[in-house]
Amino acid sequence: MLDPVATRAAVDTVLFDFLENQRMSSGQRQLSQFVELLEEFMVGGKRIRPILTVLGWQAAGGENDLTTVVRVAASLEMFHAFTLIHDDIMDDSDTRRGRPTIHRTLAGERGDERTERFGIGGAVLLGDLAFAWSDDLLHTADLTPAQSAAVLPVVTEMRTEVMLGQYLDLRATGELTDDVDATLTVNRYKTAKYTVERPLHIGAALAGADAPTLAACTAFALPLGEAFQLRDDLLGVYGEARDTGKSRLDDLRAGKNTTLVALALRTGDSAQRARLRTLIGDTGLDETGAEEVRAIFAATGARDAVERLIDDRYRQALGVLDAAPFTADAVTALKHLAATATRRNS
Amino acid sequence: MLDPVATRAAVDTVLFDFLENQRMSSGQRQLSQFVELLEEFMVGGKRIRPILTVLGWQAAGGENDLTTVVRVAASLEMFHAFTLIHDDIMDDSDTRRGRPTIHRTLAGERGDERTERFGIGGAVLLGDLAFAWSDDLLHTADLTPAQSAAVLPVVTEMRTEVMLGQYLDLRATGELTDDVDATLTVNRYKTAKYTVERPLHIGAALAGADAPTLAACTAFALPLGEAFQLRDDLLGVYGEARDTGKSRLDDLRAGKNTTLVALALRTGDSAQRARLRTLIGDTGLDETGAEEVRAIFAATGARDAVERLIDDRYRQALGVLDAAPFTADAVTALKHLAATATRRNS
Repeated sequence: MLDPVATRAAVDTVLFDFLENQRMSSGQRQLSQFVELLEEFMVGGKRIRPILTVLGWQAAGGENDLTTVVRVAASLEMFHAFTLIHDDIMDDSDTRRGRPTIHRTLAGERGDERTERFGIGGAVLLGDLAFAWSDDLLHTADLTPAQSAAVLPVVTEMRTEVMLGQYLDLRATGELTDDVDATLTVNRYKTAKYTVERPLHIGAALAGADAPTLAACTAFALPLGEAFQLRDDLLGVYGEARDTGKSRLDDLRAGKNTTLVALALRTGDSAQRARLRTLIGDTGLDETGAEEVRAIFAATGARDAVERLIDDRYRQALGVLDAAPFTADAVTALKHLAATATRRNS
Repeated sequence: MLDPVATRAAVDTVLFDFLENQRMSSGQRQLSQFVELLEEFMVGGKRIRPILTVLGWQAAGGENDLTTVVRVAASLEMFHAFTLIHDDIMDDSDTRRGRPTIHRTLAGERGDERTERFGIGGAVLLGDLAFAWSDDLLHTADLTPAQSAAVLPVVTEMRTEVMLGQYLDLRATGELTDDVDATLTVNRYKTAKYTVERPLHIGAALAGADAPTLAACTAFALPLGEAFQLRDDLLGVYGEARDTGKSRLDDLRAGKNTTLVALALRTGDSAQRARLRTLIGDTGLDETGAEEVRAIFAATGARDAVERLIDDRYRQALGVLDAAPFTADAVTALKHLAATATRRNS
């Protein structure tokens, strides 16, 4: 039985051994420095997807193949690095995990007019490398033919879902609407399935889970994943940079059409709606402007409404666990994880 | 035995059936339009990598598993779409295959200040989708365990090489040097291995090729691949847009540090060198400026020197075929392909 701390340590050993090998065999100084950027990027992070992969495997009764499940879990974390690096380009974010984002770091290396474009191009490539290497970790996880047949289609689904979800998110960014359901749909694709359901499924599939077990994973994962994203939306506006590692101005400046924003637009009066539309998406927004947005989120009750949505979904997920055909140890660990995922400050 | 025309048709059937399925199952109108962009992008192209995959398989005596080899070949073409879409972002290209590039097409859909960023973000995502789906085509090609063990490590190598090669290319772009060897090294990674060696290896590995057969693939592929890229460099400056599908100003404006440029810088006098450094990399370069660059390429003998490099490498590749342990039909087809790849106008 791996607890989350042990999972994290085991996954990190696989990840950094893999990257160190890649760095050593890259041949040229410029290339080894490029790989080093990815190594540094992967320090930190919650490792929630690897932890869920291992928990899915345990929930479905997995006991052997610990090396395989840890390597598959590491593969999902490497894939996640890919999505974050490309995400930061799309959102034009400056910081991630308390450090400059990859495209900013690369742009900073040079000082001429091509700087920004070089940063974007290099970050696209480093993300692509992380994707390729996540696949290599999967190919070298020593899956049995039965495991490959069960796991690979889920991996493909996960990749497609998160990319299409990101595209919907990208389209919605900067075009604020009060369509709360639309924001929840994007959340379901982009986060609930990607962050919670698919890692659990992949872990469970490795252990040969049957259909009722996979269905219970879904029933638990979707409400929890939605709650996770709603918490993320709140942290994007209210979180402390020292905890979250990113500026709480980024989401507002980027014009993210979160559920929080949609609720405020739906319940606000016309003056409040107009101010929100002026302030959210303003790339030059400062802390004073952000304070005004927060005041409107409070006055319209949108912030409290999101807290209630989180709480409803958290309780729904816990209810599923009471009846799920999971091992008892996994249920205990999933309850703990559900609590921290919805009540975190980072 | 599949000739190149039949290979092309078989691969295209797999590709467009696959994409049509993805489009139908994408659920939302915005998503199906997004998938449609990729379908349109994949119309046209030389399909050189799929053709080489099938030839590698035939060279190594492949006869059965035609469905498998065609699907793997289609997977490489889908991967190539991914690299082209991301490439066009990095090079800031306007056209590809005679049509606007993906990031330009997406940017054109909207008219506000976020237009360019939306185009880049959407193109990053569409490229990512093509990568994910190339992997799905590979996973569903029904490889035997022996084929998986032989092929997947080569696929990983290919992906890593092309991404690291692109990074070297990106770093070199806009920083002109007369280091001819450095430009040839980038070519080897970025094109010779990616475009010729790895597709041949992957096809040969599917047919269970032994080490001498794989070594002969390499000996043939590297000079041919270098010649292919050198021809591409010439077409980038001298080609007709109606043949190549892209503007012959793009490479010069982007400041591509090709072997052609390095040779001209090495042999030119100080006035010629200064003019090249002023003109190449000027994002506003027009046809008059491009004509001046072409005149310097002629006067310094750089253009002729590149033609000689192409011819040397072409002959070297042909020489390898005479002694290679390949099937006779494959040798005939590879000779034909070598001629067209080095003497094409598109």
